Amino acid sequence: MSSSTQRSFHDRLSVSLIDHVARVHLERPDRHNAMDPPMIDALLEVQRWLGERVGLRAVVLTGEGESFCSGLDVASVVASPERVAWLLTPDASGVNPAQRLALGWRDLGAPVVAALHGHVFGAGLQMALGADLRIVHPEATLALPEIEWGLMSDMAVSVTAAALRQDVIQDLMLTGRHLAGDEAMVLGLASRLDEDPREAALELAVSMARRSPKAVAAARRLWREAPRLDERGRLAMEAELQRNLLAGREQREATRARLDGRPPRFD
Amino acid sequence: MSSSTQRSFHDRLSVSLIDHVARVHLERPDRHNAMDPPMIDALLEVQRWLGERVGLRAVVLTGEGESFCSGLDVASVVASPERVAWLLTPDASGVNPAQRLALGWRDLGAPVVAALHGHVFGAGLQMALGADLRIVHPEATLALPEIEWGLMSDMAVSVTAAALRQDVIQDLMLTGRHLAGDEAMVLGLASRLDEDPREAALELAVSMARRSPKAVAAARRLWREAPRLDERGRLAMEAELQRNLLAGREQREATRARLDGRPPRFD
Amino acid sequence: MSSSTQRSFHDRLSVSLIDHVARVHLERPDRHNAMDPPMIDALLEVQRWLGERVGLRAVVLTGEGESFCSGLDVASVVASPERVAWLLTPDASGVNPAQRLALGWRDLGAPVVAALHGHVFGAGLQMALGADLRIVHPEATLALPEIEWGLMSDMAVSVTAAALRQDVIQDLMLTGRHLAGDEAMVLGLASRLDEDPREAALELAVSMARRSPKAVAAARRLWREAPRLDERGRLAMEAELQRNLLAGREQREATRARLDGRPPRFD
Repeated sequence: MSSSTQRSFHDRLSVSLIDHVARVHLERPDRHNAMDPPMIDALLEVQRWLGERVGLRAVVLTGEGESFCSGLDVASVVASPERVAWLLTPDASGVNPAQRLALGWRDLGAPVVAALHGHVFGAGLQMALGADLRIVHPEATLALPEIEWGLMSDMAVSVTAAALRQDVIQDLMLTGRHLAGDEAMVLGLASRLDEDPREAALELAVSMARRSPKAVAAARRLWREAPRLDERGRLAMEAELQRNLLAGREQREATRARLDGRPPRFD
Repeated sequence: MSSSTQRSFHDRLSVSLIDHVARVHLERPDRHNAMDPPMIDALLEVQRWLGERVGLRAVVLTGEGESFCSGLDVASVVASPERVAWLLTPDASGVNPAQRLALGWRDLGAPVVAALHGHVFGAGLQMALGADLRIVHPEATLALPEIEWGLMSDMAVSVTAAALRQDVIQDLMLTGRHLAGDEAMVLGLASRLDEDPREAALELAVSMARRSPKAVAAARRLWREAPRLDERGRLAMEAELQRNLLAGREQREATRARLDGRPPRFD
Repeated sequence: MSSSTQRSFHDRLSVSLIDHVARVHLERPDRHNAMDPPMIDALLEVQRWLGERVGLRAVVLTGEGESFCSGLDVASVVASPERVAWLLTPDASGVNPAQRLALGWRDLGAPVVAALHGHVFGAGLQMALGADLRIVHPEATLALPEIEWGLMSDMAVSVTAAALRQDVIQDLMLTGRHLAGDEAMVLGLASRLDEDPREAALELAVSMARRSPKAVAAARRLWREAPRLDERGRLAMEAELQRNLLAGREQREATRARLDGRPPRFD
């Protein structure tokens, strides 16, 4: 049985939730989906809303029109000093709203695939670095132009880009240089290249949603926790997560379905 | 003077040890060298056996037939619940047998080069991630299909893949996707590409065996210890290892041989 | 208003300082800029001298003649046992002179761009790994040949190469293999490729010198500190650095200049 929900947030983005896959679609195409205050509010709300959806298995993050997201809509944000102060004020867990825009995707209970095309600038790129995977159009343009405003990229980039090449991220942050999608692939910012990244991301999300949700969650949790664990801790966590999977209903269903040559059912 | 030894383990693999270079050759070609219980036992035994060989300088890991290794022979392993429990039971150092299959190569006193061709799936790929270097055929197929069985890749991958791109390893673990050898090169899983990876790995091992064993061991030890050291500790270890080399007979022989234009002799 | 200074150090290198950009030029072309004791002294002195230059905004590191630097001039260094002992003796901060040759660039208050062409061997490559960015000629040759002398690469490589692929750095250190510039790009040692790396590095440095020096320093400091901070610490540092920028004169000038469509003035 399939289920479907559709919602709009602040007239800035829509979410459709079909068969456990959420598609978050930025809808301010006349401004290349630049993040003005309503867009920021909408993104944070949709993260919370998705966090409450039981049975969510995969999320796709896409942009309407010519670009994924051209970054912060500086004029509209700077117009409100309270808004700027708020963006930099951490919550109880030490994350401020600007950083939450990126980390909120990572912290969802399901994998997030960002589909990047056109302009992928500043806040847009930093938000995408919070996704598990980035499918990028070969001619997309990626950049961190904060330096041009005398500012620093500060949306949790020191966390989300920690495993990227340091010279690559410095090059982006210190020069504001533009990278084409295919360069971004070589330099490690793109996970996959595709001529139709939105379609490819959706297909990928659908295929992930067919996997055992418990196994997907285990793999994500392992990599979420690993950076703060020493070697022995990592090995113990691997074994513990696997033992939990082996004991479970989902693993038996995955195995049976595979041996029967049919798709597994996890509902 | 050259020396040569040949041994077989459990009718699943053979080892030849010639002039300080060991070649471990998986020999179950009719099953793409899938790891059934005897193969697992053979691999762990050969790791221990090699660990006791004085004068070992390099190891090559290869597969007979069409593939390096197609992964765990699931049916034969799952047939024995005791075997599954045993695979997940850690020894005193916190490493279980499944993880030892990968880490055992890293923990040898000599560099290990894996030659990957054909199917390099699951346990096969995870074992190869425990090697120092992976020489890969451009048309080899690499994958971590554990997710298809509702399981997680758990053979120390959170240790051996810690320095890989996080999105790449997540993509493999969450989707079970197949990577060609040349894609694996771009994504960081292959160290080198070669049309004849077994021959190239052997040549590389022979060339490493001609280096000062003490200098090779020092370089490997540095990178083995570095992850748990802070900056000051790393710098101190570098200097200490170098000081030990400078004091030694091997370093003098390497220098003299180089100035004389002859191969060095470390026997 | 523009300013210009020119200096020579130990007849081994020259520095020109023009409009906040320093160009450090190795000048021992008949020996491929090999590091003999005077060159080593000159490099350490120029690092200290640059560290005292108020208003320094970017540094370019280049070599005269056919090569950037062919490494240590072994004969001339080994001729003095005191010199060897001195190279391995740490200062109060735990860094020895050999390591300082690399880390001294990283520890400057301004970004350093190394332009690599011809031979980039041993000490030459290790020094370049201390730079923020490496612009490399596609046909440059990179190698760490210390192993051929029975030694280990020990110029802070365990710090500067910590974010590189472990198999790549092991391959270089254990085999002394030669990498072409374009291979170095794929393997992560080169930040950018260019047919004229010296000119490209200078252009890049000039463009970085036009950015807000405070914002450039903030981005560099973030990545300098991040490895020793946990996630919460990183997020707090990002926010603190950004708050300092937002409060400042430079950020206002960058914004005003951008809105006026003119170059910013930070003097």
